[in-house]
Amino acid sequence: MDEVLKNQINFIIEVDKMKNIERHTRVIENLKRETDAEHSWHVALIANVLYDYAAQKDKIDIARVTKMLLVHDLVEVYAGDTFAFDEKGYEDKLEREQNAAVKIFGFLPENQREEYNNLWVEFDEEQTPDAQYAAAIDRLQPFINNSETNGYTWREGKVTLDQVYKRDALVKTAIPPVWEFVEQVIAEALRKGQIIKD
Amino acid sequence: MDEVLKNQINFIIEVDKMKNIERHTRVIENLKRETDAEHSWHVALIANVLYDYAAQKDKIDIARVTKMLLVHDLVEVYAGDTFAFDEKGYEDKLEREQNAAVKIFGFLPENQREEYNNLWVEFDEEQTPDAQYAAAIDRLQPFINNSETNGYTWREGKVTLDQVYKRDALVKTAIPPVWEFVEQVIAEALRKGQIIKD
Repeated sequence: MDEVLKNQINFIIEVDKMKNIERHTRVIENLKRETDAEHSWHVALIANVLYDYAAQKDKIDIARVTKMLLVHDLVEVYAGDTFAFDEKGYEDKLEREQNAAVKIFGFLPENQREEYNNLWVEFDEEQTPDAQYAAAIDRLQPFINNSETNGYTWREGKVTLDQVYKRDALVKTAIPPVWEFVEQVIAEALRKGQIIKD
Repeated sequence: MDEVLKNQINFIIEVDKMKNIERHTRVIENLKRETDAEHSWHVALIANVLYDYAAQKDKIDIARVTKMLLVHDLVEVYAGDTFAFDEKGYEDKLEREQNAAVKIFGFLPENQREEYNNLWVEFDEEQTPDAQYAAAIDRLQPFINNSETNGYTWREGKVTLDQVYKRDALVKTAIPPVWEFVEQVIAEALRKGQIIKD
């Protein structure tokens, strides 16, 4: 078999590990931890559903955003998931993920390796309209799951209002009509003590 | 909040159930059953990785195929997964899934409801180049997972060579360069008794 195709199939086999990387976010019905693969699917779909509400819709290529979200967590195959509210975990996150990127994208032929690596870097830097919208969706999905699981990871992380605002600020700028929903959920979560008032 | 957006958020919450629908296919590293959400992510990514090998590449819109694969199993939120080699389960599959489609896509505003429902119908009918490529990828992913888990679901279903050829025929026509890999795996699986010779 062709060497390039063989390596691509090895990539397909390797990324299967995304089904074993558990995030802190809980699945709504049974409170099991969602996997990176499940999260990646959910955000790719949500980006399409909410596309009309994107602040910079005219500058966004939704097909590119979808692909970005399909690959945005692939480095976690080796680097693992870092809990959103774990400031210590963030200290060496970049280094761990850069090493992982070389390894996981290294299975692919050069054009795909560059494309996927660049999509991941662009996502992480949050500077382009595509990346800002994608990152806003990446924040919104666990927010929604928190709102439907009695604030599971907020309670787990003893998360403060300030942290939630900081974490979800991108939703306000990138998908403004959704912000009203976010604020309603936050007010309710504060009232119930799921989020700590600073 | 706007009624349309509210329903779209309810759709996003409802499809979270895809993380609880278990398929027969096993995850490679730990042999747990993969979920529909995990499968949907994996096939959407694989379709992009193998796009260059598609027989009808010039007629395929890969962005559309990706979206098709993100929604192709959504009806299983209510209809459940039907094991690929369970002929009895296939008897009422269409009716179960049509009822489910009305319900799950019913959360969405009319344009999205039509678009997603049509993508699902097109996928299921396997008549267009987009659907044939998407369906071939949908067959290939569990095939690869079987090849990496000692033929797990082939052994479980006491699957015959004839059934495997029938199930995976689309790979041969839609992604010919991958067929060589498929034949190698089948020959090996036969030798090891993972697939039964008719």
